[in-house]
Amino acid sequence: MIYLDNAASGGKKPPEVIFSVQNALKNYSSNPGRSGHNGSINTALMVYNARKTIVDFFGADNEQNVVFTLNCTHALNYVIKGVLQENDHIVISSLEHNAVMRPVTKLQNIKNISYDMASVSEDDDITVENFKKLINKNTKMVVCTHASNVTGKILPIEKIGKLCKEKGVLFAVDAAQSAGVIPINMQKMNIDFLCLAPHKSLLAPMGVGVLISRSKLNNTVLEGGTGTESLNFEQPLEMPEMLESGTINVPAIAGVTAGIEVLKKQGINNIYKKELGLIKYLYEQLNRLENVILYTKEPKFYDSVPLISFNIKDYNSFEVAEFLNKNNIAVRAGLHCAPTAHKTIGTLNVGTIRVSVGYFNNYYEINYLINVLKKYKKLKNCIDTIQ
Amino acid sequence: MIYLDNAASGGKKPPEVIFSVQNALKNYSSNPGRSGHNGSINTALMVYNARKTIVDFFGADNEQNVVFTLNCTHALNYVIKGVLQENDHIVISSLEHNAVMRPVTKLQNIKNISYDMASVSEDDDITVENFKKLINKNTKMVVCTHASNVTGKILPIEKIGKLCKEKGVLFAVDAAQSAGVIPINMQKMNIDFLCLAPHKSLLAPMGVGVLISRSKLNNTVLEGGTGTESLNFEQPLEMPEMLESGTINVPAIAGVTAGIEVLKKQGINNIYKKELGLIKYLYEQLNRLENVILYTKEPKFYDSVPLISFNIKDYNSFEVAEFLNKNNIAVRAGLHCAPTAHKTIGTLNVGTIRVSVGYFNNYYEINYLINVLKKYKKLKNCIDTIQ
Repeated sequence: MIYLDNAASGGKKPPEVIFSVQNALKNYSSNPGRSGHNGSINTALMVYNARKTIVDFFGADNEQNVVFTLNCTHALNYVIKGVLQENDHIVISSLEHNAVMRPVTKLQNIKNISYDMASVSEDDDITVENFKKLINKNTKMVVCTHASNVTGKILPIEKIGKLCKEKGVLFAVDAAQSAGVIPINMQKMNIDFLCLAPHKSLLAPMGVGVLISRSKLNNTVLEGGTGTESLNFEQPLEMPEMLESGTINVPAIAGVTAGIEVLKKQGINNIYKKELGLIKYLYEQLNRLENVILYTKEPKFYDSVPLISFNIKDYNSFEVAEFLNKNNIAVRAGLHCAPTAHKTIGTLNVGTIRVSVGYFNNYYEINYLINVLKKYKKLKNCIDTIQ
Repeated sequence: MIYLDNAASGGKKPPEVIFSVQNALKNYSSNPGRSGHNGSINTALMVYNARKTIVDFFGADNEQNVVFTLNCTHALNYVIKGVLQENDHIVISSLEHNAVMRPVTKLQNIKNISYDMASVSEDDDITVENFKKLINKNTKMVVCTHASNVTGKILPIEKIGKLCKEKGVLFAVDAAQSAGVIPINMQKMNIDFLCLAPHKSLLAPMGVGVLISRSKLNNTVLEGGTGTESLNFEQPLEMPEMLESGTINVPAIAGVTAGIEVLKKQGINNIYKKELGLIKYLYEQLNRLENVILYTKEPKFYDSVPLISFNIKDYNSFEVAEFLNKNNIAVRAGLHCAPTAHKTIGTLNVGTIRVSVGYFNNYYEINYLINVLKKYKKLKNCIDTIQ
């Protein structure tokens, strides 16, 4: 199968990652931070090394503030519910995933928090201006995606971070689609909370998310045993234990370290350049095809992550995706859990076909996709004529 | 290392489990329940098969009500916070882990819920009577551990389940220490919510917990994209999506199926018999040693899971555990995240040394432990004399 659904999950894993998971299953199978024997300590050291690798890779401050969750959605929940209190106001972008929209809606219902949505423009300065206009004296935090999972558009995070600093509001970034694709430096970009989906472009297995925090959270969402302060029935406030109740996903955490090491070895800009080249080539080819509707401008370095959304005029996105599937090509159709983004580009009723390129893709695969798509059009025309 | 800390995590994994995780990393790396291509569908089918295996193994009703979480603690949070509303009352046992105590304490603070603690006796009928006395007209649920992680005592779950049914209250069971050790049938035992830690005696990897639900939950703790009802900013109410936001731990889920298949093949009663034999042998040997304080009665079939807690008179549990560690034996010392259990057995200030036996242990290892312990006593006496 030609796998072009990397924005949903990274698909194939590098052998280094598979080996590291296998190695963890064999050699790091004691529970870290619980017992005091060598097995437990060795696992805890391996996990600490993962926290350190993450701190270095994302320009964070402190290993203690790297929290391992089940996935990026959980990390976003920890931030949104950990920061916001009764009647708070937040500003979000117009391209948010339901991983942001749903917890925010929950807090709207139970804590009377309110939000405004800043429209994301092709012009980054206008985007920043849109955020600026919506920040008011009750605004506690800006939450926004680093890159849209529908259009691929990269938001001007550094500029929004600067704005947040000036206005004295917290800044949380959903880096599900950007982490591992383009460089992120939390300190330089003034990001307070960064949420990661390592199973996408960090090349790690499914089953682990990461929250890196540079500011204090007021509240926890889940509580339980932490291996610390056992006499205390209140959740400990020390990080990362405050947010890590119960056993963490040791094998996948080993995979995160291995994935980041692969990226460092290859250079993420080299990988990004290759992936963006592929998506740009696809964009150019699709642009030449009649009846193809593209929903982004031409992909540019640092302006897009390597994915595009399109439709074929008069054809349902699910129908086209199923035709591609029958031709051994994996893409995603529909709303991609991000209705606000579809509202922005005018595809709320029809969804889009999304092609997302990853670490293992090549030109042959893109050419194959284009040829199959050409065939689809011909085939449909032919059937339509007969009918 | 002689690994006798199976109650913290199962340690070594069977080759079938390691293979299944590796296979999932290679062949089930598409995101299930998101896209519609064959890769995604095949992964979804594999996950469905895991839900079915779990339903069959635990006498549940429906695959839809098997929810994959990060760990057992998260599953317990989903139940406790999903059921309890303002001013509700619950009854818990005197042997609960902080995975129950901490979320309950949180709800005490923010929702004014109240709880009473039923004392667990060596006599099961007295235990049931203690629960009965505490259930009042405001009682919404009984939450209790199936087996203590400190003493190994198995609670009379079937009788407590019958009581809950008679009284019309919900029944949630923390099966972290029992699932995979002794048979559990939710229907027969009248369990509404069963929470599992598959990385312990289900032989699966760390990173996945399971909640099996037979009753409706009112509330969610985490919200986000589910791949369903994307236009809806409220969390979908359909199970399991209601409780599964974001990407689930596909490789570990494959490991859960493989682990259960190993248990089915060997027969869990055969494994339990072997493990209980080892812990009983250890109990008998320790009982003969002067100055050893044991905190449970002699382990009996269906009365204890294969773990025991003890201390050596006048010696700190951490000190003894560290001595064992230096002799290549892994056990756990301290409070084991369960202070209420220690209050019950009178070890709140000193903790205990816990030896927990698992699938891979044998008599040689128990004998080795006993010999080292004997050496410890001599050594300490000698040092004490010199000092």
